[in-house]
Amino acid sequence: MDNQLPLVPVEEIERRYRRFQQTLDRMELDGALIAQNIDLYYLTGTMQNGLLFVPRTGEPCLYVKKSVARAKRESSVPVEPMGRIRELPQRIAERFGSIRRVGMELDVLPYAQATFYANKLFPKAELTDISFPLRLQRAVKSDYELNQLKRAAAYVREIVEALPEMIKPGMREVELAAEIERRLRLKGNINLYRMRAFNQELVLGMVASGAAAAAPTYFDGPAGGMGLTVASPQGAGWKEIRVGEPILVDISAVIEGYIIDQTRLAVIGELDTDLEHAYGITRRILKATEEKGKPGVSWESLYVNALKMAEEAGLADHFMGYGEDQAKFLGHGVGLELDELPVLARGFDQPLEEGMVIAVEPKFTFPGRGVIGIENTYVVTADGLQPLTTASEEIVRVRA
Amino acid sequence: MDNQLPLVPVEEIERRYRRFQQTLDRMELDGALIAQNIDLYYLTGTMQNGLLFVPRTGEPCLYVKKSVARAKRESSVPVEPMGRIRELPQRIAERFGSIRRVGMELDVLPYAQATFYANKLFPKAELTDISFPLRLQRAVKSDYELNQLKRAAAYVREIVEALPEMIKPGMREVELAAEIERRLRLKGNINLYRMRAFNQELVLGMVASGAAAAAPTYFDGPAGGMGLTVASPQGAGWKEIRVGEPILVDISAVIEGYIIDQTRLAVIGELDTDLEHAYGITRRILKATEEKGKPGVSWESLYVNALKMAEEAGLADHFMGYGEDQAKFLGHGVGLELDELPVLARGFDQPLEEGMVIAVEPKFTFPGRGVIGIENTYVVTADGLQPLTTASEEIVRVRA
Repeated sequence: MDNQLPLVPVEEIERRYRRFQQTLDRMELDGALIAQNIDLYYLTGTMQNGLLFVPRTGEPCLYVKKSVARAKRESSVPVEPMGRIRELPQRIAERFGSIRRVGMELDVLPYAQATFYANKLFPKAELTDISFPLRLQRAVKSDYELNQLKRAAAYVREIVEALPEMIKPGMREVELAAEIERRLRLKGNINLYRMRAFNQELVLGMVASGAAAAAPTYFDGPAGGMGLTVASPQGAGWKEIRVGEPILVDISAVIEGYIIDQTRLAVIGELDTDLEHAYGITRRILKATEEKGKPGVSWESLYVNALKMAEEAGLADHFMGYGEDQAKFLGHGVGLELDELPVLARGFDQPLEEGMVIAVEPKFTFPGRGVIGIENTYVVTADGLQPLTTASEEIVRVRA
Repeated sequence: MDNQLPLVPVEEIERRYRRFQQTLDRMELDGALIAQNIDLYYLTGTMQNGLLFVPRTGEPCLYVKKSVARAKRESSVPVEPMGRIRELPQRIAERFGSIRRVGMELDVLPYAQATFYANKLFPKAELTDISFPLRLQRAVKSDYELNQLKRAAAYVREIVEALPEMIKPGMREVELAAEIERRLRLKGNINLYRMRAFNQELVLGMVASGAAAAAPTYFDGPAGGMGLTVASPQGAGWKEIRVGEPILVDISAVIEGYIIDQTRLAVIGELDTDLEHAYGITRRILKATEEKGKPGVSWESLYVNALKMAEEAGLADHFMGYGEDQAKFLGHGVGLELDELPVLARGFDQPLEEGMVIAVEPKFTFPGRGVIGIENTYVVTADGLQPLTTASEEIVRVRA
């Protein structure tokens, strides 16, 4: 059958691998072997099963295992059937010459697989981790990518606008999550919230209320959630949503592979005044971050500044989690993965660049009571952070 | 807050790590470092962020990064805060003595991480891949595990029974998928369909119709599906479901972490007689496999036998995919992961064992027309394969 799905523009892909080749050149690598599905998609336009070799100069080649026909239609780089793996070393050598220094995605490639490729495909080559520079390149988004993110942002905005009709006192967290998931799915959400970090998983985000939202868990984020089982201990659970509790609606939508990330706060009736006050602080932190987030500013400085504001408000102990389970960051890049660069945390003194996309999510955790917070996804511009997410930032009020 | 989620029974966990220790003993390993979330959950009862050390004899220890409190409640093995990673080698040495041979999950652990652990935690130890024996142990399910699978099976049965009211001519595949997902979610489906293989992903399964179902893709399975975007090229897509097309409803539900896998075929109106005939063949293959699948029988023999039956029916070219995109297997283990052992494919001459759980999925692909097939999840017993999935095996007829 004829595949009518939209493709990534050829020029977009060409720009990406040309830029990646500049990195290979700077690192004095002869080429890079790309195997992870997300990086493959980013550099070729297809997510079919294969191995991509990007030489320092000249045209890359995608060796495809399955499906060759589909890869040929989708890929903007030349596709060859992979054939027998034992013949691949010679085919790579014939096409690209002798490889003495090769880059691989050593942060995600399983040990056994990386070792196999290193020994079989490049037995004489020195191995280098190419992940960080590739992730740094991916952090800066093109207009094409920003447009996908804006589409996703419109869908999560619609969800927020529908919350007053969706939320009913006594409904379970999972009921609210299931309804949000259904609506996003019909917009094209792929229901895969991809993360690069080992063992990290996400479904939808975190739709949780009161004490359940404040329950800590393994996830590298400010809020936990009970989840439905200890075998998936995060996000929406079985808890009933009650009047007066903070309801955290931290949701993602994934359109054409691109993940938007947005948090809004809802309540049935009224919040306690101290929680309402805390929400005001998260909005002030967000505004301050928007103004400060210009090209050249260090990633960590945004976190340090936000932490200072939390301290001044007397809420340092509650910032981004509570006690020993505090997360020590303010935000993270989003794009094809949820945990992209930049990381807004101590130890990252790299500068923001124009076109980087960041989810900024100041939150306060009150054990036994709930999580208060807000989150927008932004693009870095010369004037500061410009929001891609556009839902109203007021607390969503639901009638009791 | 008090976590009211059910826990894995202590005796269950103890049996598991004791049996794993027998493997360590047989392999002459001093211990194993377990890092992957699924294996961690299997051996401890918690999925919090940590590293588990299982010594050849004596009690294991789970070193937890986050959340320690939650891990202490959930884990059936002793929990210690991980503390500083640089102090961990000494703590491990003090507790477990000198480690000269250590096992790790080298099939899933990222290269950088495995190398870090090997160099920092066990600088003098020889590294061994522990994955296959651990996966082989996990392939045999306990009564506790079978009960989770039976719960999940009841939910996918309910979906099949509701299909006649859910399917409408002209609805999009994704609309049907979204409705199935919503219903399963409310039963406790975690919406994570975990796979061990690198780059393999799944959402729900495959709800696809006609030519779209027959479109090949990267996924290591018999059917592809268009998907919603080239950035997630599989499963349900935008195609409208039409009268007379085979509608493949290959769905999973994940309850307490355990994945059931079931395929049924639906049609609005009538199928072409040759497709109806092909469906009859898949049912005959399924029955033959049920009888043949007894302890001691080799994994591959079930595939070889099924392929022979497909050949005899003149459908070898269509079996488990078409042409260059044929998958060369008949089924796979399921449990905490979708791609567990055993693998029913050539090259696997290991014997079936009582208690192994297998999804058997004979399917025929007709390019441009659709995929015909059926799938049950079974437990291996002395009498052959006993079905865990119990939905009627008749074609689901929907009024035009």
